[in-house]
Amino acid sequence: MSEPDPYRRPHYPLLVVVSGPSGVGKDTLLARLKESSLPFHFVVTTNTRARRPGEVEGRDYHFVSRDEFVAMIEREELLEYAVVYGDYKGVRKQQVREALASGQDVIMRLDVQGAMTIRRLAPEAVLIFLMAGDEQELAERLRARRTETPDSLTTRLETARDELKYLPEFDYVVVNRAHALDDAVAAVLGIIRAEHSRVHPRKVSL
Amino acid sequence: MSEPDPYRRPHYPLLVVVSGPSGVGKDTLLARLKESSLPFHFVVTTNTRARRPGEVEGRDYHFVSRDEFVAMIEREELLEYAVVYGDYKGVRKQQVREALASGQDVIMRLDVQGAMTIRRLAPEAVLIFLMAGDEQELAERLRARRTETPDSLTTRLETARDELKYLPEFDYVVVNRAHALDDAVAAVLGIIRAEHSRVHPRKVSL
Repeated sequence: MSEPDPYRRPHYPLLVVVSGPSGVGKDTLLARLKESSLPFHFVVTTNTRARRPGEVEGRDYHFVSRDEFVAMIEREELLEYAVVYGDYKGVRKQQVREALASGQDVIMRLDVQGAMTIRRLAPEAVLIFLMAGDEQELAERLRARRTETPDSLTTRLETARDELKYLPEFDYVVVNRAHALDDAVAAVLGIIRAEHSRVHPRKVSL
Repeated sequence: MSEPDPYRRPHYPLLVVVSGPSGVGKDTLLARLKESSLPFHFVVTTNTRARRPGEVEGRDYHFVSRDEFVAMIEREELLEYAVVYGDYKGVRKQQVREALASGQDVIMRLDVQGAMTIRRLAPEAVLIFLMAGDEQELAERLRARRTETPDSLTTRLETARDELKYLPEFDYVVVNRAHALDDAVAAVLGIIRAEHSRVHPRKVSL
């Protein structure tokens, strides 16, 4: 009879969701995490909209037809999906399962509703809410995109206010202040490091 | 009637305990944390042993007489204390309370029994168990001190094995592998960063 060696600790890969209101900087943050040397698996979202110039299949998105997407929904192959401006967008379960099974931490960006779906399906996921420094900063970011009308800007800010109500369902909140992206990146990397140092690790099953 | 501004998040200082077996490198780790730019309050332990050459009152220890120490115990001024080789050693409550009240994170190194005392007194403390890469590494470190006889080395390794049984009571475990102190420092800084990013922060009261 031998006791387990306390120095041999099993490795549990993390399922990390970066969420937050539109315009808060989720894509920029994930781009910076991709540059870090940590061996994350970045989820590539499946999308039914037309490919834009410069976008690469399998890197930016998996592009599929609406019929294919609907078939995936029917076969329950999607972890989470949403309709965005009339197009489907979702995350395939298989991709996430395979990456976790290979021992890699999986990271994905999702809107707040999508994050809430993951919370239900995988309560052990690490949910990070990315938040602007204040509402003015969020408005600035949205204006800087030059894709918002005054009306759509107002709507997005109202939506952001509603989304903040879901904050208590998240594990962590990271503030992405203007001109301080480094701090937000360091906070997310710190969270991942801390989660891997937990004595009682989260064990994700999907 | 106004709702609280979700962008204004209160700050809760942390009470961080770095613990682990004798020889695991707690002092070296804390020395490295002191070099970081983070505004920690490092607890200075009160000690009844004679001051050694090079030691500075208030920096390395607070040196007091045994009578003074016993009086502190009787007045319940100590958060935690122990008898080490016939001398008293302990942490004054007032020091920790004042630092926390000023909003500073408080960090202290304690042996495993001391960490367990803090767990009882302040369940919201962040308890970090510093562990060697394996038992051979711990033995190497203890030998390198050149203060251990073969007997005392055996005793210390047995004690370390017993102390590992308390690991489940800790929040985090950080492995201090030989020649990889940077990793251990980064892990502790990550933990502190993550704890400050919790949506539901720990609120320490003492």
